[in-house]
Amino acid sequence: MTSPLFGRIAFIGIGLIGSSLARVIRRTDPATHIGVCARSQATLDTAMRLGLADAAFTDPAACVQNADLVVICTPIGAYKAIAQAISGALKPGAVVTDVGSVKSAVIRDVAPYLPDGVAFVPGHPIAGTEHSGPEAGFAELFENHWVILTPPRDTDPDAVARVGRLWRNAGSTVEIMAADHHDRVLAITSHLPHLIAYTIVGTATDLEEDTKREVIKFSASGFRDFTRIAASDPVMWRDIFMNNKDAVLDILGRFSEDLTALQRAIRRGEGDTLQELFTRTREIRRGVIDYRQDKIDVKTPDADDNG
Amino acid sequence: MTSPLFGRIAFIGIGLIGSSLARVIRRTDPATHIGVCARSQATLDTAMRLGLADAAFTDPAACVQNADLVVICTPIGAYKAIAQAISGALKPGAVVTDVGSVKSAVIRDVAPYLPDGVAFVPGHPIAGTEHSGPEAGFAELFENHWVILTPPRDTDPDAVARVGRLWRNAGSTVEIMAADHHDRVLAITSHLPHLIAYTIVGTATDLEEDTKREVIKFSASGFRDFTRIAASDPVMWRDIFMNNKDAVLDILGRFSEDLTALQRAIRRGEGDTLQELFTRTREIRRGVIDYRQDKIDVKTPDADDNG
Repeated sequence: MTSPLFGRIAFIGIGLIGSSLARVIRRTDPATHIGVCARSQATLDTAMRLGLADAAFTDPAACVQNADLVVICTPIGAYKAIAQAISGALKPGAVVTDVGSVKSAVIRDVAPYLPDGVAFVPGHPIAGTEHSGPEAGFAELFENHWVILTPPRDTDPDAVARVGRLWRNAGSTVEIMAADHHDRVLAITSHLPHLIAYTIVGTATDLEEDTKREVIKFSASGFRDFTRIAASDPVMWRDIFMNNKDAVLDILGRFSEDLTALQRAIRRGEGDTLQELFTRTREIRRGVIDYRQDKIDVKTPDADDNG
Repeated sequence: MTSPLFGRIAFIGIGLIGSSLARVIRRTDPATHIGVCARSQATLDTAMRLGLADAAFTDPAACVQNADLVVICTPIGAYKAIAQAISGALKPGAVVTDVGSVKSAVIRDVAPYLPDGVAFVPGHPIAGTEHSGPEAGFAELFENHWVILTPPRDTDPDAVARVGRLWRNAGSTVEIMAADHHDRVLAITSHLPHLIAYTIVGTATDLEEDTKREVIKFSASGFRDFTRIAASDPVMWRDIFMNNKDAVLDILGRFSEDLTALQRAIRRGEGDTLQELFTRTREIRRGVIDYRQDKIDVKTPDADDNG
């Protein structure tokens, strides 16, 4: 019998991501003790009922006591208060990690409160669904998905290796990256697409009733993908934009310029400008498909593209 | 033995949509004679090899001779020249239809050239993939999808009914609508989403090489949906934007205003504004899901939404 990777793990927050990781640990390391902290008793009851928690807490400090690993799985806006609350209760040699979608701000908010001898290994699994809460999780969520770790330069390499192993046990491929580079890449692959999806669905919400009804009815033609993206957790996404402001505003600025240029081309009837761009964008798609066929999960594309 | 819905059908253009409809007709009306017109001999050879055409033409006028139904399946920008070319060759009592994603411009470009006694029933199947050409088609493409018909007020009701039956044979649900209303609804459900997807993928294309490489690598987090949409046929989409200019510019103007308001909220750190919108957009998603569960195909959503 091998000893578990971490003997005691504390989850602060147990939504979609936290509960999915807890399910993985139940499978791979059944001997691990899992403590769960949540603000609402209902969430804790659910986590207990689902067999995801051995002990339930509303106080983060109580939850992390004796934990070998602390996984912060709340919206990013709560991190600073959590770090302050658990600071004095962390055991020497403990490892703290998280699953947030922004990494520089997380280091800014958490690192100053961690005592010497506690390692911080910020993490971001590139996986999820538009559903929220502990009942939405499942153990296969991370399989064939990337997990990016952004440990600050002086982080204990052994802590990084162990957190990496945790994610590889979940079926993920682990990549190490600088926090600010992560935030820049994710601003374009994830944060801007979400902002745009929220915007366009919001624009549709403001249409007259009968048009809105038909937009919903005929959503198969592209819009439906946007409604799925725009159904993601509102607080989580508010905190992402509040905490990756610079990178999001930079990429949003470039996007707006490009969109304005297309608007101008449409108004002037400059078909060549449009066709040139529409041809150029196929390259990136080929890159995405090639990459995925070589490396990582392949899904069947959705089929609704006749304008 | 029942007689076929249309004894002789002529396809002008045989790409994804045309070839899929031809496949349906081969199944449901094997006695129907199918003529196909395309500009390139290679496309015609493919259509013959796939068993989709009984006769192949490069001249549209020759193709439509004796046809009971003419289905125009080219990019919209070619319609006017096609209508002029076939005008004198159409047989009295023939029905002309199409599959284009814009309907007012199509009526403007085609109707003036059709002789008395020929009915025009403009159509738009809300189905497709990002793939193009006769080999990309398949008979199931239209199953459980909408087809919108936009016949001008004075169109022969019998012609409308027969075109409707053709699509119901393909497994579609048929809806009749005014052309300008169609164009306004599709501008938001389809044309704006495509324009945005092309733009954001174009913005990514212009990034430095190393960031671009990582955008492709980590595309699972939202961006990948956009790359799929932005891989659609460039000429078809150029023509859509050139021919639905007013509706697209109107909805694009609203979208840009809304996006600018969000940009301002991010810059000022106004989290409440973001959260309020992100909560409101969930309503439309529920509408989309409810509608689809009641009426039409349900697909499993993609699963990559953790920021």
